[in-house]
Amino acid sequence: MARTVRLALIPGDGIGPEVVAEAVKVLDAVAPDDVVFEKTTYELGAARYLATGDVLTEADLAAIKEHDAIILGAVGGVPGDPRLKDANIERGLLLKLRFELDHYVNLRPTVIYDGVPSPLAEHGPVDFVVVREGTEGPYVGNGGSLRKGTPHEVATEVSLNTAFGVERVVRYAFDAAQKRRGKLTLVHKTNVLVFAGSLWQSTVNRVASEYPDVAVDYLHVDAATIFLVTDPARFDVIVTDNLFGDILTDLAGAISGGIGLAASGNINPDGTFPSMFEPVHGSAPDIAGQQKADPTATILSVALLLDHLGLGEAATRVRDAVVADIESRDGSPRTTTEIGDAIASALTPATALD
Amino acid sequence: MARTVRLALIPGDGIGPEVVAEAVKVLDAVAPDDVVFEKTTYELGAARYLATGDVLTEADLAAIKEHDAIILGAVGGVPGDPRLKDANIERGLLLKLRFELDHYVNLRPTVIYDGVPSPLAEHGPVDFVVVREGTEGPYVGNGGSLRKGTPHEVATEVSLNTAFGVERVVRYAFDAAQKRRGKLTLVHKTNVLVFAGSLWQSTVNRVASEYPDVAVDYLHVDAATIFLVTDPARFDVIVTDNLFGDILTDLAGAISGGIGLAASGNINPDGTFPSMFEPVHGSAPDIAGQQKADPTATILSVALLLDHLGLGEAATRVRDAVVADIESRDGSPRTTTEIGDAIASALTPATALD
Ligand SMILES: CC(C)[C@H](C(=O)O)[C@@H](O)C(=O)O
Ligand SMILES: CC(C)[C@H](C(=O)O)[C@@H](O)C(=O)O
Repeated sequence: MARTVRLALIPGDGIGPEVVAEAVKVLDAVAPDDVVFEKTTYELGAARYLATGDVLTEADLAAIKEHDAIILGAVGGVPGDPRLKDANIERGLLLKLRFELDHYVNLRPTVIYDGVPSPLAEHGPVDFVVVREGTEGPYVGNGGSLRKGTPHEVATEVSLNTAFGVERVVRYAFDAAQKRRGKLTLVHKTNVLVFAGSLWQSTVNRVASEYPDVAVDYLHVDAATIFLVTDPARFDVIVTDNLFGDILTDLAGAISGGIGLAASGNINPDGTFPSMFEPVHGSAPDIAGQQKADPTATILSVALLLDHLGLGEAATRVRDAVVADIESRDGSPRTTTEIGDAIASALTPATALD
Repeated sequence: MARTVRLALIPGDGIGPEVVAEAVKVLDAVAPDDVVFEKTTYELGAARYLATGDVLTEADLAAIKEHDAIILGAVGGVPGDPRLKDANIERGLLLKLRFELDHYVNLRPTVIYDGVPSPLAEHGPVDFVVVREGTEGPYVGNGGSLRKGTPHEVATEVSLNTAFGVERVVRYAFDAAQKRRGKLTLVHKTNVLVFAGSLWQSTVNRVASEYPDVAVDYLHVDAATIFLVTDPARFDVIVTDNLFGDILTDLAGAISGGIGLAASGNINPDGTFPSMFEPVHGSAPDIAGQQKADPTATILSVALLLDHLGLGEAATRVRDAVVADIESRDGSPRTTTEIGDAIASALTPATALD
């Protein structure tokens, strides 16, 4: 009997539709014969907002929740577009989905692939994953402005951190480390952010006792940026909060093959809500519609989706096809579609559910 | 008539005393004949805490305030030392000094010197300065823990940002840009931290109208880390908040000659309180007392001190001597003292007050 996976597609703005089209092509090429991907497209983002005034309606959200998983391209209009001034597509759409769908694990792997030039002059074999908390910390939107626009303005941002929220993501990270090279690095700023820092550090210490086979260390976020540049090979699993994870994963993209290869999964491990897979990059409106975007980050996000669905063999095939494609690159420019075609054509349906 | 500069020395812990000794040596070598540096040493840091239980007393603080400027080496004991568990030397000493002495500009220049290997494979001429806010933002220590140590713990950190605090550091940054290459980049995370972000962005927009000759742009902090690795030559002056500045300047150190060359000034431009000059690096207790530390970051911090005192010619001489020393390096190891001696011996007293 075939398994049906209800997939919501949110192509979004800018280069989003172009890269999602290639990701779907790859997904279709590798999908096992006994798995049916039932796709529904949701037009969300700056374009939708400009057309209708809506960012994400309750009806949109309810409909999206009915799916098993989501592929998102990128959302956001041209920076500084005055018509978007009051919209904040990032908070109203992207972060809203992450929070409403309880995506408490934001999973962002970094690999330096052979054949991909890194801006670093020297580095060992680099293969680590950042487990970024996705539902609390400085991202909660808790803050305000007093006397806004006057010389007496005071603006606050409150980082909210709960034992519940920290523990679940820390446990996920320990599980991940156990399945990988057995090393976990907590990144925070415990010497300055003493309240949140103590919650993170004590949670890691406590959970560590249940994982005697995982080696744990700690780095302040500032020091972590140094090691990402000078010794990225030292990392296996990094666990960190929402804001530090945002910063570290862009930097991780930069030191590896660039943000065109950086994949991510916004995961609700409990399965209560659909998880969402998206490239780390944004909508890049300046090159939209020109077939200039590299769809690889979105295709690698499809591999994370396949992992999440328990289709590990298919995920491995996608990754292998991407690696082969990367190794074959000779620097001559290819269109978005050409890259997607090259990767998809190397794939055949994976075997039945594994 | 000779001018007297009352200088407080806080050598601190670990490698602090070694690097401060060399910095003082260089200062003495270059000091104009008509300027007398009157030095008083304050024993502060982990060692003092372990000996007396005090981190920074009111009497210490009052005494330090009587000086014209401060040179600080580094403070902090061996990480994880259980006897320091309740101390938090960083908050109780270093940040306390920055806040009490109203060091609202934390000035951190980055130069990639010829002859110093950068971990980056390629880069243009790199010469930028980060103007980091030093007295507010997420560093204020405003937060708390509820139900600490229980499964219901909630920990908060409040970032406090005021129009007063943001505007004064933004103005300083515009002035700096005007004297340099005329480019200012605001770094923040306005799409997520909308309250603080709006205060920073609107302040920069408003002040910009008074500096028509300064080109202004904006980067989200995550994107800024990418550009620091892929195109650091694009930066001239970066202005940012306390936490983002902490992160960006360690990264800036990493992409340039490493944290052994990164200098900083904690500046109170009003002159109400003494400014404090310190290397960006920490106390490195693992190599303390072994003459392994590079004193160059502290010596370059002395150049910032000389700038601050209006002794620009002496500052330039120190920088030139450092550059010459760096260019002469052939990779053979030198002791802390040997590096200090080499730089000091190239110097003669600067001419009278300039
Ligand atoms: C667009 C923005 C809200 C988002 C974030 O900060 O999480 C992005 O930078 C990311 O990393 O996915
Ligand atoms: C030691 C620590 C409190 C300090 C900071 O975060 O400001 C340090 O990292 C720095 O950059 O000077």
